[in-house]
Amino acid sequence: MNQLYGNALVGQSGGPTAAINASLCGVIEASLVAHDAGLIGTLYGMRNGLDGLFSEDFVDLFAHFSDPPSRELLKRTPAAVLGSCRRKLPAVENGSDVYEEALRIFRKYNIRYFFYIGGNDSMDAVAKLSQYIEGQSYEMRVVGVPKTIDNDLPETDHTPGFGSAAKYIATTVHEILRDCSVYRIPAVTLVEVMGRDAGWLTTASALPAVIGAPGPDLIYLPERPFSMEQFYSDLKNAFVRHPNVVVAVSEGIRFADGGYVGAGAQSGVTDVFGHRYLGGTGKVLESAVKNTFGCKVRSVELNLPQRCAAHLLSCTDIRESRAVGAYCVKAALHGESGCMGVILRKPGSAYHVRYATVPIRCVANRVRHVPDTYINAAGNGITDACIGYLQPLIRGEVRPVFRNGLPMHYIL
Amino acid sequence: MNQLYGNALVGQSGGPTAAINASLCGVIEASLVAHDAGLIGTLYGMRNGLDGLFSEDFVDLFAHFSDPPSRELLKRTPAAVLGSCRRKLPAVENGSDVYEEALRIFRKYNIRYFFYIGGNDSMDAVAKLSQYIEGQSYEMRVVGVPKTIDNDLPETDHTPGFGSAAKYIATTVHEILRDCSVYRIPAVTLVEVMGRDAGWLTTASALPAVIGAPGPDLIYLPERPFSMEQFYSDLKNAFVRHPNVVVAVSEGIRFADGGYVGAGAQSGVTDVFGHRYLGGTGKVLESAVKNTFGCKVRSVELNLPQRCAAHLLSCTDIRESRAVGAYCVKAALHGESGCMGVILRKPGSAYHVRYATVPIRCVANRVRHVPDTYINAAGNGITDACIGYLQPLIRGEVRPVFRNGLPMHYIL
Repeated sequence: MNQLYGNALVGQSGGPTAAINASLCGVIEASLVAHDAGLIGTLYGMRNGLDGLFSEDFVDLFAHFSDPPSRELLKRTPAAVLGSCRRKLPAVENGSDVYEEALRIFRKYNIRYFFYIGGNDSMDAVAKLSQYIEGQSYEMRVVGVPKTIDNDLPETDHTPGFGSAAKYIATTVHEILRDCSVYRIPAVTLVEVMGRDAGWLTTASALPAVIGAPGPDLIYLPERPFSMEQFYSDLKNAFVRHPNVVVAVSEGIRFADGGYVGAGAQSGVTDVFGHRYLGGTGKVLESAVKNTFGCKVRSVELNLPQRCAAHLLSCTDIRESRAVGAYCVKAALHGESGCMGVILRKPGSAYHVRYATVPIRCVANRVRHVPDTYINAAGNGITDACIGYLQPLIRGEVRPVFRNGLPMHYIL
Repeated sequence: MNQLYGNALVGQSGGPTAAINASLCGVIEASLVAHDAGLIGTLYGMRNGLDGLFSEDFVDLFAHFSDPPSRELLKRTPAAVLGSCRRKLPAVENGSDVYEEALRIFRKYNIRYFFYIGGNDSMDAVAKLSQYIEGQSYEMRVVGVPKTIDNDLPETDHTPGFGSAAKYIATTVHEILRDCSVYRIPAVTLVEVMGRDAGWLTTASALPAVIGAPGPDLIYLPERPFSMEQFYSDLKNAFVRHPNVVVAVSEGIRFADGGYVGAGAQSGVTDVFGHRYLGGTGKVLESAVKNTFGCKVRSVELNLPQRCAAHLLSCTDIRESRAVGAYCVKAALHGESGCMGVILRKPGSAYHVRYATVPIRCVANRVRHVPDTYINAAGNGITDACIGYLQPLIRGEVRPVFRNGLPMHYIL
């Protein structure tokens, strides 16, 4: 172990999730331990990710979160408590100004540990920053903490934030299925789930199976080309079984030519104000089914609550999100840099995980798709193997802290 | 007390809610007591409301729900466990065939108590059925049990189902506000809430105030005419305060000429399939704001989960929904008919309620709007008096019965 004394800096980036603050909590808790061991002086949080780095907008996280109740509330607070950004760093060879400015700030605050909690784009920043620092006469460790509800980061069994989003989606689809079952008239209900490139979140709609309850009749993922003819045929077959057909679709489904099904809603259609129309995949299919079948059709876009429904967290997800954040601090203290923490599932029928790091270059700008073995032959549903993979990730609950009937959040 | 021995029949009707099964639970529990007292023989449930009456599609509810755990699960199950319908009965003077058929079935099963759990349209059926029965030589008591998330039934302080919907809306808007706060770039997020005629559900978006948290910047209800000019001016003022503007709008907001704001999305606009577009109020405003302000705009339609999110019930609502169902049975046993159960708030600063009945003619086909004293002068927000009214209705939680990470439902 190569001991390095100094301060630490942590930021959050990319789209919010319900678990990104649990990872921050893990970073804080491991840093508190390192502080007591004389390894980390102060842990700064930068507001709005890299924007806060360059504007030196730092907050002392030990001051805010040294007492356990504040950290319990932090774990139950959705979205990035430090704020986020969508900043992309230039290639190291083209951006010496930017990187020199970063280094100046690191020196100024004696930052020796840099943690960045985020998804694909954020890992790109971690890769570039660690690459730049390696070539400088300044010892510093740069570690990425994974985060994305999309579950599409490579090298990790699953991503922090996915389990809670999956639990929310499964619970909501389960409730929508009850709602749809009350009438006897033929009806199609389309549930649009997030996931532009990978269908992981949409597979979670099938999870009512884990309690023996019915799931959606049809499930469409971006991993398979979407065909309107096949869709109509699938619907006809579903109507033979019962009148209330429920369909889960990923927002990112595409036709064989690569065009997004939802693109129609964004391509020049105007409303009564003469404005271009913004809709989604669900709305496009709603309109198509209504005109083809003439039956009652609705679409439900699960939308933002998928990534911020902190009132319904997966305990497994929050525990692991916290643990991976803490693991990344420990890895940095042990001398690692230019890497990202991952969650690995141990072999065997019981669900156990361990934590590790992988070189950041294996992760940045790559997408992990739902594998073929998780999708049925017809491309309109998922397999038992997929349910087996998903099931442990939504287990357990984290009770919100209710006051006057509403869950409390930590607002920094 | 005019004792009448016989069987009871109960049905559910109209749009599902997360609390309609709690009212059914109350009817079952009070009927079990009456059964033990020798007053009610059997309690039948009719499937799909009046459709099940005429098709004699009955289920023995004592057989299914005599053990308390099954009733606990029933209270946590969203949507009508017996199914629903949208059947409208003809005027009594024009529909002798229909009513004679109903009476034949009542006689056949010796139905002496008839309970119908529903909203406005269902109370119309209760009014007509009780009116018809009064003129017949068949003693029978017909009582309506209120239900609607819309909170728009007259004569009752609030409606069963509203409190849970309000809790879900308040919690979700609270979470969306966290999600929207992470970026610094100007953005407008529109949250579309149910409520075609009355704005009650939309007022619930302001409830983060009860925990000292910020609510939406702007709230628009159908009770005030909507003006695009005023809306743009309100947005400009909101942007002065902060970059992330959140707006709650009722789906039923209308322009001064009476036209629905959301109607634009349903009036001839076609998509790439040449199909007519179906959108909502939020989508129309999203498009308008995007084109006028040029900033990032999103709309979130809370949609079906507002009425079926049984994983986040208000304990106050479920307790009262159950109690009003039980009260209606007791009222019928005491000889009342042609009436609906209501919840009345007792005077005083502490929240206490009592139950009563009102003649059904005072209720049927009438709508209760958000009063003027609950809406601010500018028509873009609500008053403290409104918060005071809403606050007790979302209090307390009902823990779901989780198995394998998902809430269980009772499927009949």
